Amino acid sequence: MKIRAVIESVIRPSRVGYAHCGLPCGVYDPAQARIEAESIRAIQQRYQNAANAKGAGETVEDYKTRALKIKEERAEMVRNHLWILWSDYFKPEHLAKYPNLHELFWAATKEAAAAKQSEDPAQGEKLLAAIGEIDKIFWETKKA
Amino acid sequence: MKIRAVIESVIRPSRVGYAHCGLPCGVYDPAQARIEAESIRAIQQRYQNAANAKGAGETVEDYKTRALKIKEERAEMVRNHLWILWSDYFKPEHLAKYPNLHELFWAATKEAAAAKQSEDPAQGEKLLAAIGEIDKIFWETKKA
Amino acid sequence: MKIRAVIESVIRPSRVGYAHCGLPCGVYDPAQARIEAESIRAIQQRYQNAANAKGAGETVEDYKTRALKIKEERAEMVRNHLWILWSDYFKPEHLAKYPNLHELFWAATKEAAAAKQSEDPAQGEKLLAAIGEIDKIFWETKKA
Amino acid sequence: MKIRAVIESVIRPSRVGYAHCGLPCGVYDPAQARIEAESIRAIQQRYQNAANAKGAGETVEDYKTRALKIKEERAEMVRNHLWILWSDYFKPEHLAKYPNLHELFWAATKEAAAAKQSEDPAQGEKLLAAIGEIDKIFWETKKA
Amino acid sequence: MKIRAVIESVIRPSRVGYAHCGLPCGVYDPAQARIEAESIRAIQQRYQNAANAKGAGETVEDYKTRALKIKEERAEMVRNHLWILWSDYFKPEHLAKYPNLHELFWAATKEAAAAKQSEDPAQGEKLLAAIGEIDKIFWETKKA
Amino acid sequence: MKIRAVIESVIRPSRVGYAHCGLPCGVYDPAQARIEAESIRAIQQRYQNAANAKGAGETVEDYKTRALKIKEERAEMVRNHLWILWSDYFKPEHLAKYPNLHELFWAATKEAAAAKQSEDPAQGEKLLAAIGEIDKIFWETKKA
Repeated sequence: MKIRAVIESVIRPSRVGYAHCGLPCGVYDPAQARIEAESIRAIQQRYQNAANAKGAGETVEDYKTRALKIKEERAEMVRNHLWILWSDYFKPEHLAKYPNLHELFWAATKEAAAAKQSEDPAQGEKLLAAIGEIDKIFWETKKA
Repeated sequence: MKIRAVIESVIRPSRVGYAHCGLPCGVYDPAQARIEAESIRAIQQRYQNAANAKGAGETVEDYKTRALKIKEERAEMVRNHLWILWSDYFKPEHLAKYPNLHELFWAATKEAAAAKQSEDPAQGEKLLAAIGEIDKIFWETKKA
Repeated sequence: MKIRAVIESVIRPSRVGYAHCGLPCGVYDPAQARIEAESIRAIQQRYQNAANAKGAGETVEDYKTRALKIKEERAEMVRNHLWILWSDYFKPEHLAKYPNLHELFWAATKEAAAAKQSEDPAQGEKLLAAIGEIDKIFWETKKA
Repeated sequence: MKIRAVIESVIRPSRVGYAHCGLPCGVYDPAQARIEAESIRAIQQRYQNAANAKGAGETVEDYKTRALKIKEERAEMVRNHLWILWSDYFKPEHLAKYPNLHELFWAATKEAAAAKQSEDPAQGEKLLAAIGEIDKIFWETKKA
Repeated sequence: MKIRAVIESVIRPSRVGYAHCGLPCGVYDPAQARIEAESIRAIQQRYQNAANAKGAGETVEDYKTRALKIKEERAEMVRNHLWILWSDYFKPEHLAKYPNLHELFWAATKEAAAAKQSEDPAQGEKLLAAIGEIDKIFWETKKA
Repeated sequence: MKIRAVIESVIRPSRVGYAHCGLPCGVYDPAQARIEAESIRAIQQRYQNAANAKGAGETVEDYKTRALKIKEERAEMVRNHLWILWSDYFKPEHLAKYPNLHELFWAATKEAAAAKQSEDPAQGEKLLAAIGEIDKIFWETKKA
């Protein structure tokens, strides 16, 4: 690793991310799920305020239609990022230490599915909280 | 915004991410490109060490083949995240302040393409550095 | 065909299907995961017999390269079908009756990931057996 | 092949599924098209009953919008599964025995396109019938 | 190369296309972006005339919903084709000759994003004009 | 339509393209299939000349692996473009005039599948010729 990268990993620890690929490459980061969930919450907020949020060349109905389409897809991205963490990153030794791991992921992925049917930003907030719990455990296991 | 989220945005500023959707939802974050680029660098490292990194049920050649396939796809993800930032997030007022913006993105997306043809982790390091420059500008504009 | 399936094909003549969509539409079927896993096993068998299985216009190495690429993608399809069943179809009342449900899905999706790294048809057989266990529970819950 | 698999291939021949991959792997099954078409029919039924089928956090209009989006995608999946069967599984000797093969696939893929524009479950029923005809021929050719 | 192809390349030069792949294969053609943009303009025209353009089995609202979904996706395809031209085909020597190259692509990809929010065929016309400018430069560089 | 577009459609008839979307939007163009097929032929040519075509940071084997992956995907794109033309653009009245229409598409999509297994540019040439026959009929029907 180059010096620059080493220094970065010391002074900006929370910026070092971990994502997934199927090699596996060992890079994972719950931020991927969180970022998409923040997009969902932002869409729910804009949906509630569609008259102001919409573009000049579209109706409120058009805008809501697009919001629903995009939210649906973002929700599936959240789920995909979470499923990969669950199936690939977490190992039996983690489960031994965090016995509610399966329940957390089951609840979070069900909450992400619920986001498809909800236009309420409070729902997006709940989804973010569920991801936050997983994120907390993830980083504890990385430090361990 | 709930109190919990407000507090989080204060005490964990670098964790607040910004991603994209085509609504637009206003959520962007260069971390999405960076995470995929870290995956690329990790794949390049493993490729160099394939005999140790490979699974028990595959040959070194098999492993390298899979590494190349996955790296190719990760590189395209990096490019997609960067292109979206360039076309959607950045506005003329940003360009006025950062006149080399186009060049930075052009170079970074060309570096990501180069990652498809390189098995050298130093190349992945260069890609991460290019994304790092964009990341720096991005966060400066968010603070402005 | 098992007796159960034979009877079903008579009294419910092939029209009763169970697949997924995010509405949700209520249609699910573990056959989707199974079919992709059968493809994986077939690819593993052909990989072992590449000299005979390959096309006239490609080398053995070319054929193996393509086999690895396709298997990688099929494995991810298996995982996606399983994840959707786990997160969308199965409910707390099912878990109460089948307490090992989480473990079954965790093991099956990890086995599907292992398929990416294995060229042994016996591995594909194990994956099919894991899906078979889920399939059995699924149909029991549909009858309940 | 393990003994278990050999026995299975004898006593459960119809459980051996046939899906596609581009190797080719020789695994095909019209069930893939049928399952997606059943999803289409279920969506058309729910669309007609949107007020009851919708989630608590969405309006009838929201629900219908999502139903249309998902149906559109399911219809393209049906078409893709059918096209692959037509181009990859079926050979000239099959056409010699079933001279209307091209017409059946042409009609079925056009019916799947029609599903995008129809909210009537009777249309989905017609699509399922068209797939059923292909399924019947497919299994006759497998037995031959 | 067969005689037929040689003759064609002489008498129908504008039919010889250039598309992209990540090898790179050296084949590019702005026609790919243009064709998708023509689809966008056609969708905008049909949206304005939805009562006549819609199918018999769908409402005007249904038709508009589908139009918006498809236009959104076509717009992203336009962007993707343009981004690839910008990052992969164009080189520093082209930029030296066409100093407004970055601006042209920035404007065109922003116009394609605007297509998501506009139901006005005049907007699609503007997008096609922006692509036309790029197309003109592209073919000049191919001749050079 | 603006004057500029009208003039263009007169002086550059072969540049006016027709692509597909599922609305339908009425825009189709066999050029989409042709461009991808030209990419396939270019990949086959480069495969034969891999030592010269490869990047500095990759081995000949790496380059061939990437070529095979990309060709596989381009072949599926060709097929998809052709299938859409066959199922969506062509109508019974076209078939009445061109009775070999089904056979032409069947052969062309099978030739595209063959491209996955062939590294010979002459095979890509055959695929282009098959697409050329369809292209000829397509434009005759557009003029009729």
